[in-house]
Amino acid sequence: MKALKATVNCDMGEGYSLYSMGDDEALMKTIHLANIACGFHASDFMIMDKTVRLAKEAGVRAGAHPSLPDRQGFGRREMAMDPDELANCFTYQVGALSGFLAKHGVELSHIKPHGSVYGQTARDPVLAQAAMDVAKAFGVPFMGLAGTCHQTAAEEAGVKFIAEWFADLEYSPEGKLLITKKHDPVPLDEVRKRVTTLLNEHLVTTTAGTLLIGEGVTEVSICCHSDTPDAVQIAQTVKALVDESNARSGYA
Amino acid sequence: MKALKATVNCDMGEGYSLYSMGDDEALMKTIHLANIACGFHASDFMIMDKTVRLAKEAGVRAGAHPSLPDRQGFGRREMAMDPDELANCFTYQVGALSGFLAKHGVELSHIKPHGSVYGQTARDPVLAQAAMDVAKAFGVPFMGLAGTCHQTAAEEAGVKFIAEWFADLEYSPEGKLLITKKHDPVPLDEVRKRVTTLLNEHLVTTTAGTLLIGEGVTEVSICCHSDTPDAVQIAQTVKALVDESNARSGYA
Amino acid sequence: MKALKATVNCDMGEGYSLYSMGDDEALMKTIHLANIACGFHASDFMIMDKTVRLAKEAGVRAGAHPSLPDRQGFGRREMAMDPDELANCFTYQVGALSGFLAKHGVELSHIKPHGSVYGQTARDPVLAQAAMDVAKAFGVPFMGLAGTCHQTAAEEAGVKFIAEWFADLEYSPEGKLLITKKHDPVPLDEVRKRVTTLLNEHLVTTTAGTLLIGEGVTEVSICCHSDTPDAVQIAQTVKALVDESNARSGYA
Amino acid sequence: MKALKATVNCDMGEGYSLYSMGDDEALMKTIHLANIACGFHASDFMIMDKTVRLAKEAGVRAGAHPSLPDRQGFGRREMAMDPDELANCFTYQVGALSGFLAKHGVELSHIKPHGSVYGQTARDPVLAQAAMDVAKAFGVPFMGLAGTCHQTAAEEAGVKFIAEWFADLEYSPEGKLLITKKHDPVPLDEVRKRVTTLLNEHLVTTTAGTLLIGEGVTEVSICCHSDTPDAVQIAQTVKALVDESNARSGYA
Repeated sequence: MKALKATVNCDMGEGYSLYSMGDDEALMKTIHLANIACGFHASDFMIMDKTVRLAKEAGVRAGAHPSLPDRQGFGRREMAMDPDELANCFTYQVGALSGFLAKHGVELSHIKPHGSVYGQTARDPVLAQAAMDVAKAFGVPFMGLAGTCHQTAAEEAGVKFIAEWFADLEYSPEGKLLITKKHDPVPLDEVRKRVTTLLNEHLVTTTAGTLLIGEGVTEVSICCHSDTPDAVQIAQTVKALVDESNARSGYA
Repeated sequence: MKALKATVNCDMGEGYSLYSMGDDEALMKTIHLANIACGFHASDFMIMDKTVRLAKEAGVRAGAHPSLPDRQGFGRREMAMDPDELANCFTYQVGALSGFLAKHGVELSHIKPHGSVYGQTARDPVLAQAAMDVAKAFGVPFMGLAGTCHQTAAEEAGVKFIAEWFADLEYSPEGKLLITKKHDPVPLDEVRKRVTTLLNEHLVTTTAGTLLIGEGVTEVSICCHSDTPDAVQIAQTVKALVDESNARSGYA
Repeated sequence: MKALKATVNCDMGEGYSLYSMGDDEALMKTIHLANIACGFHASDFMIMDKTVRLAKEAGVRAGAHPSLPDRQGFGRREMAMDPDELANCFTYQVGALSGFLAKHGVELSHIKPHGSVYGQTARDPVLAQAAMDVAKAFGVPFMGLAGTCHQTAAEEAGVKFIAEWFADLEYSPEGKLLITKKHDPVPLDEVRKRVTTLLNEHLVTTTAGTLLIGEGVTEVSICCHSDTPDAVQIAQTVKALVDESNARSGYA
Repeated sequence: MKALKATVNCDMGEGYSLYSMGDDEALMKTIHLANIACGFHASDFMIMDKTVRLAKEAGVRAGAHPSLPDRQGFGRREMAMDPDELANCFTYQVGALSGFLAKHGVELSHIKPHGSVYGQTARDPVLAQAAMDVAKAFGVPFMGLAGTCHQTAAEEAGVKFIAEWFADLEYSPEGKLLITKKHDPVPLDEVRKRVTTLLNEHLVTTTAGTLLIGEGVTEVSICCHSDTPDAVQIAQTVKALVDESNARSGYA
């Protein structure tokens, strides 16, 4: 069995106004893909400019991390959006980010929805399709949850799908991601074991054992949260494993 | 003397949420260039999508109409912005509009600042340069006031300059635009005479006589406000004169 | 059977920035209670000041019309709010309105939630209780739907309940309000008949017959939408009927 | 010469959404007056509720800290506001805060403008008067700069004036406050000397010597910034001096 092609991703640029969140400068050195906030749940035009510059300097690929229009709720309150509302909401945000990418001569890498709308598009096929329309219009892959509407809609729309997997969260025996408000610390050895199992055996470690990550998944991106305890150390560890595995399998 | 190359432009898509402003569908048929609001003084992601679609259907070229970040003040309250703040503020908005243009397969035509920041960039060379950096990054002309920092900064930056002229506003004997909160009605015959004088003799009609529109001006765009009494009729009249003059002079 | 004590209410002050909505000056003369927007779905600090002044001049009682924090969606997109979020969200808005009421020497009359959160608080007992905590803290009645969590929570909290009834909307045979995006015209004779039936017989006219408006209801307020065709004429008709009925029954 | 009556004040509740700013819980124990952000430059309905609760628990008097409507700029970009705009802008914010004060059974203590509008109202007599109208309507003192329009307008409006003085900032030889973006550390001994000189001799320490704090000043409030290095220690030192001086002079 060939190892899964993999990357490490992190949500970036989530400060706002005078406020900062996470240590973007440090984390930018431990990842391959940055999911850059677009001003709706976090960030603003100053922070987006700085974040794109940081990504460019670190050689990190820059993706868009669009959200529901809810800054005060950090995009974490579900909102009832019509599919065309969602598509336009994403188009606005990804377009805004693209302005900064053009300025810095960086290409848009991918789209990954933020917060509640990540879950809403994973569960609702019509919303997933609306999100996919945006990825298609911008000509970039969509990053989301394997085995959910994310993957189905991407395949139907002919959009490249990147399966996201979380090294620092638990999965139920059925493979359902167990989202926590506050992220618990995870021992580094456990992280290493989970990552190796995923890359080499295509198996997701669950609270009861392991599960195949999903049919049709050819590329996975491992999300490192910036607010997990020891975030930077975990990200470094995961990135080293991923880089080594990719090199061994001959992935660029 | 060869007639000035000219277009008719109008601020478009300035509704918001459930609110509408101006009769965009009717006016779109009477103009060559639309200055499309980008969500900071007016508009939102639903209205931007609709406005770009309307422009495309009418064959109207779509420009960006970025503003200060002040929706409640409709971008009409001057704000102290650093040059890099202004540049990033515009990059965000023009980028957001570009998202919708890409979706509809329409090219960005130009940038024209809205409201207070139109005046601030006309007066302040450093802010003008910041705005011009954005026009340059997007590779489009800048529309502004001849004989102000708009023109100087555009020439210095190597950005194509479109001189805007107002058929429905008065000019002082020195050629200074006299901005009114509520636009007075202007007799159609007076509008016709002003436009003909501008195109054929390159002369701006002032309250005291006429003035040369400015050195180095090769293209002018006549702004028709959507809130002037008889806006649609004035715009139709001006557009007919412009189309006829352009055709006579062999402009595309 | 004694006639129900009644008032006529209307949502007021729903413009924003340069935008207006409805003819507040005309409608203010046809109602007893104004539900005044507080800046979250509509209105801003200029329009709130003007609306409170208009209410005062017309002798109309001024209530607060708080909303979800969603201006672009006009408060009509359901949002997942925790009870304490909802309570604080309402406290902020009602407090802001109270500032203008204090300035103009007007008392707060009541609270009626706007848009989606009207429905959310009608269906969810915990959210209803959160809303009622705010009404209690401000010491004013709560206006909502009879027979829903609105009424139950008000009774439990010891908050005076005003049952709202819609002269220009239909009710299902079970008494469920049939909300329409665009309000259809209703013949004046039909409106008269419905109002008289309600006041004199305490019966809600449904699409299948009539239903008792609900146990424990002692006061009703008839909502007139400002965007129904012939809104002003309908409101005048209803107000005349209500004033006459109140006078006949000896209500102040 | 009798010692000046004095208090210590600090800007509080300036977080937003998930973001925090300053250590409110620690600082609340070192001050007499809290200037509480009202949601326009910082804070939101969740943080306002929490901040009022903290102030109540610490026995700190709760004042309003209204701002220009510019959250992204943290209220630090000057905006052109008409006097009635400014008054309504403040009324909205102070009203909103009053909602939370009412909920917690706390009285509004004073009003102090935030950021750029602090300076704008200090320099512009018409804006100062507009701000004073709001203090008068709410029946509370105004905190501002002695010898500026703040003091004059307060005296004219019959509003009690509290002169603010900054222990951790420098004053020019003319007594003009020298505002810094980043606050430099100030040695504790220097702070002690400045405070003692102010309270006992009514003299402001300048970069060149000392100056009388201003005619008509009977009460002073010493501002401790939360972002100065060693903010908590400085505030504790100042508060101890102030409490001792007040007690010695028989102030409540």
